[in-house]
Amino acid sequence: MFKLESTVKGIDQLDKEFLLKAEAHLNNLTKPVGSLGQLEELAKRIAGIKRTLKPVLKNKVIFTCAADHGVTEEGVSAYPREVTAQMVLNFLKGGAAVNVLANCVGARVIVVDMGVAEKLKVKNLKARVFKDKKINFGTKNMAQGPAMEREEAVKSIEAGIEVFEEEFKRGIDIAGTGDMGIGNTTASTAVTAALIGGKIEELTGRGTGIDDQGLIKKIEVIKKALAVNKPDTNDPIDVLSKVGGFELGGLTGIILAAACRKVPVVLDGFISGASALLAFNIEPKVRDYLIASHHSVERGHQAILSHLKLRPLLNLDMRLGEGTGAALAFHLAEASVRIMREMATFKSAGVSEKADL
Amino acid sequence: MFKLESTVKGIDQLDKEFLLKAEAHLNNLTKPVGSLGQLEELAKRIAGIKRTLKPVLKNKVIFTCAADHGVTEEGVSAYPREVTAQMVLNFLKGGAAVNVLANCVGARVIVVDMGVAEKLKVKNLKARVFKDKKINFGTKNMAQGPAMEREEAVKSIEAGIEVFEEEFKRGIDIAGTGDMGIGNTTASTAVTAALIGGKIEELTGRGTGIDDQGLIKKIEVIKKALAVNKPDTNDPIDVLSKVGGFELGGLTGIILAAACRKVPVVLDGFISGASALLAFNIEPKVRDYLIASHHSVERGHQAILSHLKLRPLLNLDMRLGEGTGAALAFHLAEASVRIMREMATFKSAGVSEKADL
Repeated sequence: MFKLESTVKGIDQLDKEFLLKAEAHLNNLTKPVGSLGQLEELAKRIAGIKRTLKPVLKNKVIFTCAADHGVTEEGVSAYPREVTAQMVLNFLKGGAAVNVLANCVGARVIVVDMGVAEKLKVKNLKARVFKDKKINFGTKNMAQGPAMEREEAVKSIEAGIEVFEEEFKRGIDIAGTGDMGIGNTTASTAVTAALIGGKIEELTGRGTGIDDQGLIKKIEVIKKALAVNKPDTNDPIDVLSKVGGFELGGLTGIILAAACRKVPVVLDGFISGASALLAFNIEPKVRDYLIASHHSVERGHQAILSHLKLRPLLNLDMRLGEGTGAALAFHLAEASVRIMREMATFKSAGVSEKADL
Repeated sequence: MFKLESTVKGIDQLDKEFLLKAEAHLNNLTKPVGSLGQLEELAKRIAGIKRTLKPVLKNKVIFTCAADHGVTEEGVSAYPREVTAQMVLNFLKGGAAVNVLANCVGARVIVVDMGVAEKLKVKNLKARVFKDKKINFGTKNMAQGPAMEREEAVKSIEAGIEVFEEEFKRGIDIAGTGDMGIGNTTASTAVTAALIGGKIEELTGRGTGIDDQGLIKKIEVIKKALAVNKPDTNDPIDVLSKVGGFELGGLTGIILAAACRKVPVVLDGFISGASALLAFNIEPKVRDYLIASHHSVERGHQAILSHLKLRPLLNLDMRLGEGTGAALAFHLAEASVRIMREMATFKSAGVSEKADL
């Protein structure tokens, strides 16, 4: 566990001095104090992460981790399992929503096979956007027993760390998380329930769009998985191995590695949130590096955001995953640092300050 | 009233065929139906406005209308009146928040002097970004009598139409509204109360940041202005003239002109909302051309959005105005049409569709 341990050890707190300096600077800009709301909070946080009042967010990377889930045998998803592999190829061809939204902000999308159930036919020329880190051909059915071995869980997190480190060499100023995996809202709900508690009925959503009967079945399957596996709620690796997924492990590693490298991480929706929860349970300091992009329709997502005390920036009723919300929020992160870098001060613009009323 | 009348007459309903075509196309793209939520709603609406499934939002323009308010005599704002003129010069120098956020999306900012209380010293070279449409040197104190003459109210709306038309010749694919005017949350609250009712206490916010005592005084002043002037709630021009402002009139004209030219309008916060309410009361068909960018901290704003049945895209606790929220939301509007234009279909990508569960 050397790579995981050293990464976790490398995670610092935000720099308090830069948080205060950023606040003082923002209060000097030509606008009423605090009137840009969450945009100012974001700018401060990024200054505290990067130790500068002039952060640059040029190199933007979305990591879209894909894997399959044995629990789809139970009929918990509206789409067939082969869609995971098909969508990976769609990502690589640039036809998916995440590609379009990443292009809108000049971000690159790195697609990671963490455990897709089939051997993907990816041509060599895609080496710069595709990473083969397959831990196994999908997880096992968690309603029958553990989704993966404990060793595989650690391996999946370390693969995520590796992916981040490889890309960090090419330059990353801000990272975004994304996922693809038919069945992964089922795993994410189980992980969320194990780590923060709550009623399964209130944490379970419709995923890609199951009907009422499907939802009832999904709730039963999640309850069964938790009952059969009894994950140790104090051990995030145990939770990941028993009721998680390979893409959740990969994203957990990416989040930990980003925090270690002082790179802010924009979380996508529910699956990214469950991965952030795993990372937070491994090292609570990661929380301050996390930016919640949007509030997903998936019911468990709200529970995660409340638990991590994260405020989503967008409210668009999205429920797609892939990194789509993260890509949209990159624009807001960039806008926030440009506000801090580029606005005039009251003094430089010759604008009168607030009267002493 | 020829220009106003002909503009209003020129406002069409959205094209129902294109709304349906856009929906069918979006449902064919490689994502669960509706999973991009409000982004899909936005794409549909823009298709219905522009009568195409491939809308282009290249030319983006923020109209920032500035004016002063006689009611500041009553001490309703935390900032002195001269800040309006100072901020106009800041906009023209590019140092304000709206300039930075407009630059982030490649939008141009058109600054309009609708009624600033002093003669602005603007150099000739700013002719492409500055419009002098001054109706008067600020409104009169509405706590003592009407803010402006009825004729001035019509003139301010027609000046807004003119500004839009001048810029339309240079190209506008999407417009955003913005404001600057010390005292204008007081006027906007009075306009909102006159047009949709509700308790003044529940509609009044802290503007640029008044304290508790200031808030009590502001509420009293608004009540007095409504009692003294008794605006005819069925006549938006009467409401504008008695308790409005010149920048509200200008924005009302810009909104009507944009709808007439089939250009979607991204609304900023409370002052833009009050202007949209005036435009809606002149011609309800404008509603479908309006995109609510964000949910302002100003309390009256929520009442307007509910009344107009508009859903804000961003939730950032902003309360600055200028067009800052509109500039941020341009990115979302552009992202929505790029999704419609650029994503692969299930067929083109070879992805399996939803199973019949």
